[in-house]
Amino acid sequence: MQQLQGASRFNRRAIKVGEALNLVLEAAVPGRRVTVPLREAGGRWLAESLTATTDWPPFPRSGLDGYAVRSADTALAAPESPALLRVVGTVAAGGLALAPLEQGTAVRIMTGGAVPEGADAVVMLEQTADALGAGDEPAVRVKSAAAPGQNIAQAGEEFRRGSVLAEPGTRIRPGHVALLGTFGYADVPVFARPRVAIMATGNELLPVGAPLEAGCIRDSNSSMIAAMVEQSGGEPLLLGRLADDPAAVEAALASALQQADIIITTGGVSVGDFDVMAAIIRGIRQNESADKLRQPDSMGYSSQLDYADNTQHSNSMEHAPYSESADNTQQSNSMEHAPYSESADNTQQPNSMEHAPYSADNTQQPDPLPYLLFDKVAMRPGSPTSAAVINGKLLFALSGNPGACFVGFELFVRPALLRLQGVSAEACAPRMMTAKLASNFEKGSPHERFVRTRLFSREGELYADPLAFNKSSMMASIPDAEGLIRLPAGPSGAASGSVVNVILLD
Amino acid sequence: MQQLQGASRFNRRAIKVGEALNLVLEAAVPGRRVTVPLREAGGRWLAESLTATTDWPPFPRSGLDGYAVRSADTALAAPESPALLRVVGTVAAGGLALAPLEQGTAVRIMTGGAVPEGADAVVMLEQTADALGAGDEPAVRVKSAAAPGQNIAQAGEEFRRGSVLAEPGTRIRPGHVALLGTFGYADVPVFARPRVAIMATGNELLPVGAPLEAGCIRDSNSSMIAAMVEQSGGEPLLLGRLADDPAAVEAALASALQQADIIITTGGVSVGDFDVMAAIIRGIRQNESADKLRQPDSMGYSSQLDYADNTQHSNSMEHAPYSESADNTQQSNSMEHAPYSESADNTQQPNSMEHAPYSADNTQQPDPLPYLLFDKVAMRPGSPTSAAVINGKLLFALSGNPGACFVGFELFVRPALLRLQGVSAEACAPRMMTAKLASNFEKGSPHERFVRTRLFSREGELYADPLAFNKSSMMASIPDAEGLIRLPAGPSGAASGSVVNVILLD
Repeated sequence: MQQLQGASRFNRRAIKVGEALNLVLEAAVPGRRVTVPLREAGGRWLAESLTATTDWPPFPRSGLDGYAVRSADTALAAPESPALLRVVGTVAAGGLALAPLEQGTAVRIMTGGAVPEGADAVVMLEQTADALGAGDEPAVRVKSAAAPGQNIAQAGEEFRRGSVLAEPGTRIRPGHVALLGTFGYADVPVFARPRVAIMATGNELLPVGAPLEAGCIRDSNSSMIAAMVEQSGGEPLLLGRLADDPAAVEAALASALQQADIIITTGGVSVGDFDVMAAIIRGIRQNESADKLRQPDSMGYSSQLDYADNTQHSNSMEHAPYSESADNTQQSNSMEHAPYSESADNTQQPNSMEHAPYSADNTQQPDPLPYLLFDKVAMRPGSPTSAAVINGKLLFALSGNPGACFVGFELFVRPALLRLQGVSAEACAPRMMTAKLASNFEKGSPHERFVRTRLFSREGELYADPLAFNKSSMMASIPDAEGLIRLPAGPSGAASGSVVNVILLD
Repeated sequence: MQQLQGASRFNRRAIKVGEALNLVLEAAVPGRRVTVPLREAGGRWLAESLTATTDWPPFPRSGLDGYAVRSADTALAAPESPALLRVVGTVAAGGLALAPLEQGTAVRIMTGGAVPEGADAVVMLEQTADALGAGDEPAVRVKSAAAPGQNIAQAGEEFRRGSVLAEPGTRIRPGHVALLGTFGYADVPVFARPRVAIMATGNELLPVGAPLEAGCIRDSNSSMIAAMVEQSGGEPLLLGRLADDPAAVEAALASALQQADIIITTGGVSVGDFDVMAAIIRGIRQNESADKLRQPDSMGYSSQLDYADNTQHSNSMEHAPYSESADNTQQSNSMEHAPYSESADNTQQPNSMEHAPYSADNTQQPDPLPYLLFDKVAMRPGSPTSAAVINGKLLFALSGNPGACFVGFELFVRPALLRLQGVSAEACAPRMMTAKLASNFEKGSPHERFVRTRLFSREGELYADPLAFNKSSMMASIPDAEGLIRLPAGPSGAASGSVVNVILLD
């Protein structure tokens, strides 16, 4: 195995979680829009502001089964002296009265029926009695005075025509579906599901279906991340396992950039000798440190042993960070085995979130330079979590430790996926609540810490009960985690009963 | 329009919500099992108890990048007097040491690497310094004493082989996916998605795509219910709108019973003259009131005008409630226009949850008699919510009022769908928390009341803030509802600050 060395392996500057999230959300832009039938819209994110197409209700509706009356006709009604009204017709739901209601008359009406003109109240069936009027006409006895407006849903009482039902970026819940159906939205504009390439790096990884071998483990992160991507509305593309081989990983990244809107890798992101993603991220960082004043190479990283040399081939095309040269000969030979460095072939590649089938009008734009967002976060677990932008697409390099991988996704990838689906930057941040710690929790380090926890309520108080098996390398507590307690940086943990912030998990 | 009359229209006995839920859960039985690839298992419900196939970790693993040492060799180490250890090799993740670690030596090891025999601690890279040993061999200086076990995940510390990872009926979350991948479950046994037929009744209903007509509204309930079914793991079958015509509804029910595991209707379930579902449910109730001592007809209901007569043709086949006669001539003519009454043709129809493609071994069993679970629930909204069992399948007749329809689904249908997917009866009940009321809430009736609410936390306390537009007929508050406050039966509402139960909504 080729050993990756670099002078800057330990020169990673940790940034705060909030700062890292802001960088992600600045880099993530809402993506493509598609139209889906209403019946498939549940759980998607709305792409346009939708408005009420009529007043709602569209006509005065009866709230129950009974009789539509003129309330004045019942003003003196009482059980012992009911008002006797002539019944002149029936309005079923979907039907209409033949004529306005005249004094001394009533209309039998069903739930949802259109209250006739002239009527201003509905008396529930159970408060009436059938009767016969003069000349044996059908009639009804009303046993108590009806209040004007009683049991009628007035036209427009819920919505006025043109009022906003939901804003873009709203996740469509069943109640939204009901509103959209009510106002005639048979097709619904939603954001396309972001395509998320998922790759696991590490020589130790076996396929899930394989027997264990000495020193090896199965790739469980890819499937876990795929499930989290699905939860977040994304479409996972499982690109498999990659050895700790820079060329192979570069090739896979290049391929992933062609297919996906976001790329997630797991593993190889720490300070180990073979941490291939750390090396790749380091290359991007160094490009950035050269103030982007050089010819872009497609990936912005090299697979040479010494990545500190990477800036030396960045001397042409000054001040043109977004231009792309079709002439590759100026590039250093360090990119020779990186398939993605063939930038002359890449002009057909669409940009950012706009993919060829949906928009082909900007394929002539050059790919912007890759840039690093962060390669270390001041938190536990997951401090080596890294993110960069390549060709306008987010690359997340998550830890291979399952606990850290999970936290890295929740803090940074899920918000990015929401942002790509139009959620406002403010609403993309993890959903947070406050809760009381159900037991003492000691931190092992002074860093900000995310602790998997159960949640329960008692007498209106919300409690967070940290789970056992909370180490970064451990999986056992992930399935049971209902939240992540966020303990601020500091020397100690938190005492039972103290109020903590908790990120809610799906 | 045919008017449905019946002496028993008002004779519906309201049962309590908990009692109604218990009846539903007794009638719902876990359904078919299927196997899906791990990558598609997220969000499904596990069908078998799955166990750890090895100890986990399977070997002692290094928790970080550094050096594997014998802790005794470092016992006297300090920054000013580091221990000098000869470096005899490297263990990458996926690799193995060539030999056990001998006294005075160390092995470079990466995160996840197998700790060599003889080593009992790992020193993190940052706490070491490269050095040269005697004869210029590679060596390392360790600057502090290592504690035995330090930075090593011991074999079996998270799971012992055979220990249970998850029980049947567990919803598979991303953390479960990680565990299943780790232990080699490339295929996962899950419960099949229940097929849920959805039908909306009501002459007033237009398709969602249609222009509004006077007195009419669009069918928004079907799509809302479909979205809720999807949330609950079911597969919605949207069978469309039905006029308030008993024959049409009976035919649709018969067809739905052939296709679906559960049937949901909306509308027509109250005391109105044209409430077709109420009439059908009434027929089932009357059959039940005859103590099931009669020949079964397939649906157990009639479309005759007077449903009170329905028990008169239930005089043969005493004490054989589960037998089916191929001889239909004994049935009254009241079933003539009900396609589903052709029971001689129904013997091919599979039973309960076991459908032909999955299990054909019990198709010879007769269909059991239909029976009523309830036709009134002591609650607001949704008191006419009804449920019955036909051919072993649950029929839910929900209110057409969207607010009541929504509550009826949350209280009874969602639990049934979970039960069909193997969730224990206890865990099927709606998820409940306690919260403090953020404002006074006055009830309009003495019945148990479910109030749509927002939820928020402050200083570890959970608050429920009732939404406006909370009437049964109203939709406007459904999209924003994060919970349903459950106010017990009683004359008044609840005061701000009082502790209330809240059902959590997805």
